[in-house]
Amino acid sequence: MLGEFDLIARYFAPLASGAEGALGLTDDAALFSVQAGREGVVTMDTLVSGVHFLANNAPEDIAAKLLGVNLSDLAAMGALPQGYTLSIAIDSTIDESWLEGFTLGLEVVGREYGIALLGGDTVRTPGPLTLTATAFGTIETGRALRRKGGSAGDIVCVSGTIGDAALGLLAIQGGLQGISDKAAQYLAQRYSRPTPRVALGSRLVGVASAVVDISDGLVGDLGHICECSDIGMEINVESIPLSDGAKEALDLNPTLVQSVLSGGDDYELAFTVPENLMDLLKEVSKKAGVMVTDIGRTVEGAGSGRVSVFDDGKPVDVAIAGYRHF
Amino acid sequence: MLGEFDLIARYFAPLASGAEGALGLTDDAALFSVQAGREGVVTMDTLVSGVHFLANNAPEDIAAKLLGVNLSDLAAMGALPQGYTLSIAIDSTIDESWLEGFTLGLEVVGREYGIALLGGDTVRTPGPLTLTATAFGTIETGRALRRKGGSAGDIVCVSGTIGDAALGLLAIQGGLQGISDKAAQYLAQRYSRPTPRVALGSRLVGVASAVVDISDGLVGDLGHICECSDIGMEINVESIPLSDGAKEALDLNPTLVQSVLSGGDDYELAFTVPENLMDLLKEVSKKAGVMVTDIGRTVEGAGSGRVSVFDDGKPVDVAIAGYRHF
Repeated sequence: MLGEFDLIARYFAPLASGAEGALGLTDDAALFSVQAGREGVVTMDTLVSGVHFLANNAPEDIAAKLLGVNLSDLAAMGALPQGYTLSIAIDSTIDESWLEGFTLGLEVVGREYGIALLGGDTVRTPGPLTLTATAFGTIETGRALRRKGGSAGDIVCVSGTIGDAALGLLAIQGGLQGISDKAAQYLAQRYSRPTPRVALGSRLVGVASAVVDISDGLVGDLGHICECSDIGMEINVESIPLSDGAKEALDLNPTLVQSVLSGGDDYELAFTVPENLMDLLKEVSKKAGVMVTDIGRTVEGAGSGRVSVFDDGKPVDVAIAGYRHF
Repeated sequence: MLGEFDLIARYFAPLASGAEGALGLTDDAALFSVQAGREGVVTMDTLVSGVHFLANNAPEDIAAKLLGVNLSDLAAMGALPQGYTLSIAIDSTIDESWLEGFTLGLEVVGREYGIALLGGDTVRTPGPLTLTATAFGTIETGRALRRKGGSAGDIVCVSGTIGDAALGLLAIQGGLQGISDKAAQYLAQRYSRPTPRVALGSRLVGVASAVVDISDGLVGDLGHICECSDIGMEINVESIPLSDGAKEALDLNPTLVQSVLSGGDDYELAFTVPENLMDLLKEVSKKAGVMVTDIGRTVEGAGSGRVSVFDDGKPVDVAIAGYRHF
């Protein structure tokens, strides 16, 4: 294996070539600019091998997930992404071909979302491969989307389709008996390569009253909006948008609806919208090219933070809601 | 052990109370402002238990080291620190009393340097405790100190005293036979709790022509300035500022001068200054309350990147220079 400096020069410096402020990754820190009238937005996520991804996952997918979860946080704040820093704690299993795949994955996602590598750290670990990224963006000052801000009577919406990632993990683990290969592959890919809703998030500024990204699970994350906004919610299972793959899995085993309600890693956006802005939301959804679906309504619920789930009007118990096993 | 949300609320949210942009650590990302005419500066460092610190180190010291190494990078760029994000990958040895000590350490250093926690991530790892911090600061746009910018004829200077950290690690490992307890304790403390030269760094803007912080070792890090500035250097061992503890260690074993020349972790600043600005440097040093010492001179040396070391005029070979074992 190369020494640290050679490794940075060969694999990481090319990822920084598009960002002047990265200073070629040869200085002690990096520079980034925030235009007048805007403020910085920052988020940080860590993925540990064996905990957040599987050691035999494709390195391109691990890279896509690392940047995807960070970009999803920026999207939930309504920010425009600008760049990221990366810390990689390398274990003995990592070789140059892994690094080639990983940095290729970073390059592809970086190009897609317009973010370049600004800096970071490269260390050795006797433990599992551990990846941390800090992503930066900007937003018009004072306009960041928050988990607070929702009011009783708002419409509860989600982007894309829900539950694919949790079902995808099940598919990878062989837990979706009888499902078609096509559906299994689709769901697995949704687990492995999240699609951060950056184009939608930045357009929700002035439309959504509160936003969260779905990392812990739909009901758990909606619960965060409820807590921060001091409201309750009533959502309808039959309204939750499902992919064809998820529909196939649920047709085979209807109890998997619990995975849709409480499974994590979808990295879709969940948000509340004042009813009179729903027409504007439709326009925004079209411009962003991202489907949004009305799944319920916010209700008075000060202090409760409770998300009530109904299936054709009948209450549904949700196994795990808002608790994060970490 | 508490769940993630309770753990954040109890131990980490208090560290964020001073920063409005941290949003109480309850949102998907944090906000930070960069005033007009200034730009952001960002750095990221990871410490792995058993690699960068010892598992039985005091958690307060580990916290001080984590923030210290990041603040040192900001100092080397001339930046004013603003805040930090933290990712902590917790292993099974970590209990609440460790977290109490660790967050106390973060609070003390955060208060001293005026930086609050803005956000981050908390995960579990089956491997060693792994800590990553991303530190943010700002600097007047276009004025960041760099490793490039030194010219032949500049004076080579360092802050504080050199070699203490490497000797301190030796002391901790029982490798400084015959040394007094007082000296051993002083050196050990210099290893465990770096003193980032933030007050000096920000004042070197307009004075120093090139700056680096000493993390890899004096000769190795000066080599980075040489490479980036396309110059050579001649430094004099007898001019290198030593603490009383380091002097005692070198009196007992003169071969330890190699630790002074190439041992890492001092987190002092090494920099070049045009000769006509040396009077200004003296003022700046006084204002910052940090000793600076002239240890040599830059020379023509395009492409070589070579740091020549002399002891009373005789060339000295340096065992490890510029190579980073990571």
